[in-house]
Parts: sequence; structure tokens; C-alpha cells
Amino acid sequence: MTQAAVLGLDVGGSSVKYRLASADPGDGMPDALAEGVAPAPAADLPASLAELARTVAAGYRLVAVAVAIPGLVDEATGTVIRSTNVPQLDGRPLGPELTEMLDVPVMILNDGRAAAVAEARWGAGAAAHDVFTLALGTGIAGSHIVDGAIVDGANGSAGELGHVVIEPGGLPCSCGQQGCLETVIGAPALRRVWNAAGGEGSARELLAAYDEGDPRAVAIVQAAARHLADAILTLLALVDPGVVVVGGGLASEPHRLVTLAASYVDELATFHRVPPIVPARLGRWAGSVGAAAEARTLAA
Amino acid sequence: MTQAAVLGLDVGGSSVKYRLASADPGDGMPDALAEGVAPAPAADLPASLAELARTVAAGYRLVAVAVAIPGLVDEATGTVIRSTNVPQLDGRPLGPELTEMLDVPVMILNDGRAAAVAEARWGAGAAAHDVFTLALGTGIAGSHIVDGAIVDGANGSAGELGHVVIEPGGLPCSCGQQGCLETVIGAPALRRVWNAAGGEGSARELLAAYDEGDPRAVAIVQAAARHLADAILTLLALVDPGVVVVGGGLASEPHRLVTLAASYVDELATFHRVPPIVPARLGRWAGSVGAAAEARTLAA
Repeated sequence: MTQAAVLGLDVGGSSVKYRLASADPGDGMPDALAEGVAPAPAADLPASLAELARTVAAGYRLVAVAVAIPGLVDEATGTVIRSTNVPQLDGRPLGPELTEMLDVPVMILNDGRAAAVAEARWGAGAAAHDVFTLALGTGIAGSHIVDGAIVDGANGSAGELGHVVIEPGGLPCSCGQQGCLETVIGAPALRRVWNAAGGEGSARELLAAYDEGDPRAVAIVQAAARHLADAILTLLALVDPGVVVVGGGLASEPHRLVTLAASYVDELATFHRVPPIVPARLGRWAGSVGAAAEARTLAA
Repeated sequence: MTQAAVLGLDVGGSSVKYRLASADPGDGMPDALAEGVAPAPAADLPASLAELARTVAAGYRLVAVAVAIPGLVDEATGTVIRSTNVPQLDGRPLGPELTEMLDVPVMILNDGRAAAVAEARWGAGAAAHDVFTLALGTGIAGSHIVDGAIVDGANGSAGELGHVVIEPGGLPCSCGQQGCLETVIGAPALRRVWNAAGGEGSARELLAAYDEGDPRAVAIVQAAARHLADAILTLLALVDPGVVVVGGGLASEPHRLVTLAASYVDELATFHRVPPIVPARLGRWAGSVGAAAEARTLAA
């Protein structure tokens, strides 16, 4: 009999990552019967996702699909409420549309949550029951994951370390507050400080200049890491996770921000119990792994 | 047959509060077959606690006792590790000693935890599954309680809102950091600012002067409430509890700090989901109620 498989898709603004995995239930990381990246067309994305699913799952019996979306989704109805990076999906009932096209159950979930759970369960958080993941990029996303499940809080909005105020009275944040962590270490904030110091390019060029020992870049990156350390100390005081996993574009190899922030936390901690503060491991595949895992529960 | 009863004791520096309750298992607040306050002798506290237990439980069949202690305890062995307010108990195996004298199981627990659980389950947090309690006094204690149980974190130290930094580079805190919430709204901090402004007495007199409209007191209490609001906004961003319960001496009737802080949180919140921020209800009995509840589980 043809092997049953599930598919996890991680939809971004310009590409779709996929992981096809065995439909067998289990607690392990979903295996990769197939894995890769496909372009995301600017128009008619649902039809192209269905086509991608058929192509990737050729030779298998596809039994469930989960799609991770960069934006706000309603999991109960499979609807994309709002997606800044993939605006063509705004308001679309993507789950029911794909179910109609593929004739299998389809789940829609948030990409950050999918990636965080995967990183906590099978990535850098695998050894701990109680994991806090951070994704450093344009925005800063945080998730507290206990025994493999996200701790949502009473209103579904726990974990917002990016919007903890680090500099009272500081710069305005997109959230409406002033001096949030995001206003000092988000990619646009780093770019602004870097350009103001005479550096060229974005936060990526800032990190490259840091690696080359540019003293302006060293000062900026050290200050950013110090702010990240302040936020992590607040996290340890309030949440006390067993490990802090830091991922996202700004935390990529060679992990300068993570390593520096971890050393500042060690230096500044007093009563705090300092857990390992480590770089994420699954990298860009975390979202599709998390989606495949959700699809597996859907198939069970 | 004589009715079976359990006893909760809440030991302070100068007095012991007690609640005798029915030993019947249940989720409701332990009833008060007897309740009151007895003096705590400066010497031989364990013997006097045993004597108090016999007196209070006269006419009942005492089946279990739980003793709440202001300090660090080892619940597993029933030992008081360190108690600043009741130093004669330091290092004593109080649980085994009382078991020997009373011939019933005896549990030793931390008073703040006992009070927080009672307040969350049967006090101001009773309507919510997810409760954060704060006790404002000399120090500031926080506890996150979900479905009636304290969320300890990976290392048993979650909930320390008193040691979240509110004023970076501010005054030194007893914990070793600078600018913790405790350094700006703990009772000694309020007394210092009040005295520096020419006010007489302690934080209690400051609050009384606030009630009388003393402009110096109004400014100080408003600033304190604003700092408390900042800390609560951090709490909402990271933990997102369903209700915030504020108790302790500085939050006592007429609850000026709580009311003011709640209004500042409403004003300052942006993306946050603002839960009810309410005064504690069980007041000085929270510790003995919590202890009686623990004794009841011991009897079951």
C-alpha cells in the first residue's frame, strides 16, 4: 500500500518551504521524505500551494496538510485574518480552499508559533521542558513553550518580550509604547544607529562590520546585546525558563548577538537562575518542521 | 464520632494566625471551625505551636497541620532553612518536631505562597483560571497561579516582579541589581522619598497624608503608582494573566496604590490585553486559609 504522508508548508513573501513527512504518529521530529523551497507566485497562491502539494507528495498518499503563514490567522476556521508579507491571503479562507482542492484536512497556523514549537521540541530546546524562544528580526517575537505546547496566557498574548520597555521614555515603537526592546534591537533600529554612525547598508552589513572589528560596529552591537541581556534578565525574573533559544536573521551564524548577550546576562545576573542561552538550531526549516508536526496530529 | 479537623497556622514575627477547618476534602475555601490570632513567644516556638494546636482543636479530632513560615523552607523534609522574621526557627526540622508532639502529619510551607494560592483560589482571583498576585510591603512578592497551582518556572524562581528593573541605572536593590521595582515602591523606598520631602513617619503615614490631600504625598504616591503600572505592563506583555491581584500592607484599604496603578495601566496600555487589576480580598487571613487548605490535602 502506498505510504501515507503529511505535508508542512511555510509560506513567506517570496518562497514556500515544504517538508513531507511520514503520517505515523509520534513525538519525534517529523522525518523528511522530501524537503525544499519553491517560489511563491504573486497571484493565485492557494492554487499554486495545492499544485506544490500534489507535486511534492507524488508517490505518496497525502493525508493532511498544515500551512504556516506570516500573519494573524484564525485556526478554528482556517482563515488568514491579516498577513503583511503575503497580502493576497488577507481575509481568505485558505484552509477550506485547500481542503476543497486537495480533499484532505488542512490546518492554517501562524509561522512564528510553528517555528517556536519546532525549535523547542526538536531544536535547541529539545533537552528542556520549559523553553523560551526569541526570533530577532525586523520585529522580535517571543514564545514560552512548556512540554511542547505554547503558553498563551489568559488572552493569547503572552511572550511579547519585544514589547517590554527597556528604555523608559525612549523611541516610539510600532506598538504605541516608547522604548520597547524592538525599538533598540529590531533590524530597522540597528540600521538607523549604524547609518547614523556613518556605516553603510542594513543590520546585516552592521554584523559583517562587527565581524571585521569595525569599532563603530563593535560599539553598536555590544550596546544592542546589552539591551537584549536586560530584557532576558526581566524574562528570567518573571518566567524563569529552563533554556532561552535565540533565532531569527539577526541571530544567525556566527551568533554574535546571542553569545554577547549570554555573557552580559552572566555578568549582570544576581538572584536570577541563569539557564543556557543558546542559538536556534533548525534555522530556516523550523517553520516547515513545525507545520509538518501539526499536520501529523491532524492525520492521527 | 468526633469531627475530624485540620489546622492551618500562619507564623509571623510576633503572632500566629490560625484557622481550624473541616478535614472533608473539597475545592471550596476551608471553613472556619475556629479562627484567630495568638501571640508568638520569643522562645520555644515549636512547643507553643503544638500547645496552640491542642487548644484550638479541643473537641475535634485533629488529623493534619500545615504551618506557613515567613522564609525559605524545605517542604520535602519540613525544615525551616532561613527565616529573617522568626530567626529561632532557622535550620529547625519544625515539621518532624510538631509531628512528634502532635502525632499527626505536619507540613511546612512558605507563607507568601500559601497566601497567594488562597487569594487566587478563594479571594480576588476566584473568578479567573490564570491569576498573578502581588504583595506590596517591605519587599514585593509575586506569584503566578494557574488553575490553583503556583507556576514555579524551571528553577522555582518565576514571578519576581519586584526584581524587574524599572529604572535602568537606578538605586541599588537588596538583590544586587539597580532600579528594581522594589527600589522605587517598596516600603523603605517610599519612606525615604517621603522623609526627604519633609514628611514624617513611614510609608503608612505617607498614605495617610495622601488621603488628606497633602500635595507632597500625592506626588510621591502618584509616581509610585506609575512605576507599579510600568511593571504591570511588563507583566501583561510577558505573562498575560487573567487577573492581577494586589495585596500587602501598602495596598490596604482604601487601596489608593491599586486604584491609581490600574488607571495608569489603562492609560498606558497599547497592544496589551488589560485584565482586571484588583485589591486582595482575604487580607491578613490569606496565609492561614492557604495553610488550612494544604493541611486538608495532607488529610485526604
